[in-house]
Amino acid sequence: MSVGPAGHKGVAVRGLTRLGGGEATSATDALVIEEPLEIRVDGETVAVTMRTPGADADLALGFLFAEGIIAGSADVGSAAHCGRPGEEGWGNVLDVRSAGGSRIDPERVLEGRRWAVTGSACGVCGRSSIQGLLARCGQVSSPARVAPEVLRGCVERLGAEQPIFARTGGLHAAALFGADGSLLAAAEDVGRHNAVDKVVGALLRQGAVGSANGRSPAVLAVSGRTSFEIVQKAAAAGVPFVASVSAPSSLAVDLAESARIALVGFVRGQRLNVYCNAWRIAGEAGEP
Amino acid sequence: MSVGPAGHKGVAVRGLTRLGGGEATSATDALVIEEPLEIRVDGETVAVTMRTPGADADLALGFLFAEGIIAGSADVGSAAHCGRPGEEGWGNVLDVRSAGGSRIDPERVLEGRRWAVTGSACGVCGRSSIQGLLARCGQVSSPARVAPEVLRGCVERLGAEQPIFARTGGLHAAALFGADGSLLAAAEDVGRHNAVDKVVGALLRQGAVGSANGRSPAVLAVSGRTSFEIVQKAAAAGVPFVASVSAPSSLAVDLAESARIALVGFVRGQRLNVYCNAWRIAGEAGEP
Repeated sequence: MSVGPAGHKGVAVRGLTRLGGGEATSATDALVIEEPLEIRVDGETVAVTMRTPGADADLALGFLFAEGIIAGSADVGSAAHCGRPGEEGWGNVLDVRSAGGSRIDPERVLEGRRWAVTGSACGVCGRSSIQGLLARCGQVSSPARVAPEVLRGCVERLGAEQPIFARTGGLHAAALFGADGSLLAAAEDVGRHNAVDKVVGALLRQGAVGSANGRSPAVLAVSGRTSFEIVQKAAAAGVPFVASVSAPSSLAVDLAESARIALVGFVRGQRLNVYCNAWRIAGEAGEP
Repeated sequence: MSVGPAGHKGVAVRGLTRLGGGEATSATDALVIEEPLEIRVDGETVAVTMRTPGADADLALGFLFAEGIIAGSADVGSAAHCGRPGEEGWGNVLDVRSAGGSRIDPERVLEGRRWAVTGSACGVCGRSSIQGLLARCGQVSSPARVAPEVLRGCVERLGAEQPIFARTGGLHAAALFGADGSLLAAAEDVGRHNAVDKVVGALLRQGAVGSANGRSPAVLAVSGRTSFEIVQKAAAAGVPFVASVSAPSSLAVDLAESARIALVGFVRGQRLNVYCNAWRIAGEAGEP
């Protein structure tokens, strides 16, 4: 089988505002790249997954194998990106071609499970255009600004709301807070996206999200890394801050920026990084 | 809207074998529970996700809201588990009922995306029976045994094969090794499942997986936590060891046990925990 060029280094450098102790400073940070990959078999789309570009042919082969769609590399004639380098969207659609005849049957996946699963790709299925993805999420209308010490308090409080993690070391957490740092809901789950769904769902039940009544949540704090999907759920719930002790992906920052969400990472001790919409941080300048 | 009982504490206690320095000792460990949740809308299945039981109604509401299927809690009449407590499978199927009339339209999700995404649930869609899940994965036929120091070496080597993580702090890694600890393939990705697909795909291309030829990989090392899905991919590729610096979930251990995979966690310094199939550790007794 033949495999197209791998491309890519997986890292994007972005500007940010660093707060901690004294003045805010401008800096740059290397972020891991997150982009959607559409996997096709003989031209037909079978899955879309959010991934870090690079080794895309291996990713597609491993995925098709784990799903039982191919039995080995002998089933595959070629695996290469569609289109040409430089064209819009190039590098994010990969076509796996059968080795002579029609040995690969993508219907196996579609029949076997109506809701085939592609990891962290929630909401992007069928859309390989990143701009389309971002536009689809809209903007958070809340004008909220929050002080750095409130954000630090939220992340610290999240750590205190992890009773299962304390016992098992094995799962993620998410919590929603008001603009004054008051805890509104907290949840733990093996899936980070589930923990976020649980806290948003809890506030939906209370009418604080998805209705004109109630006090809206201002800060979503999550354990671990911030991916596109997490920011997408915050945008859907109209939450203007996402904060984490850890790093965001490139697409998480892109979406937060276009959705008017302040994305805050590496909240540790007195320090924190603001990756976009720093005007939402109380005391910082600007506001579109 | 009405919501059924939440149930559950999210933790399961399991036996394990602890190695480190001197003798192997038997111990117990608290593991986070991972089980599939099937979400239905007015009786029709719309998604299956692997989650930690608890707050299932909130999870379903948050999920349906993020997907744009409900606009708020006013759309929902009730959200409760199907069946009765004590019945087989109770607690893992949740039905969300419309509030009078047919306001919730699950077709929105099915039309909007043929491959709706439910997080870490790869391969379980449509199956709420955990026993069925486990049986479906088969058993790893390899008789390989590996020494503890080789497993430690694999996990250490994985840490050295993370150039993007070193720059960004933002992603996962996976690597496959031979029974002698030699590195066969390594990959990084924002999605842990993608990193595993990439290394399996690399060996598929080389004919070392999915063919009778070649030297099969013996150890899959992953950064972070070990979920059901990771073990499932190891089972599909016939890999008899899964090792991590971190904790496994309950269902990861269940699947590893039935698939004859030795699941090794908390590989740190001289210590490591073997959660099942300890007979595969060179020097340990037993073998079915």
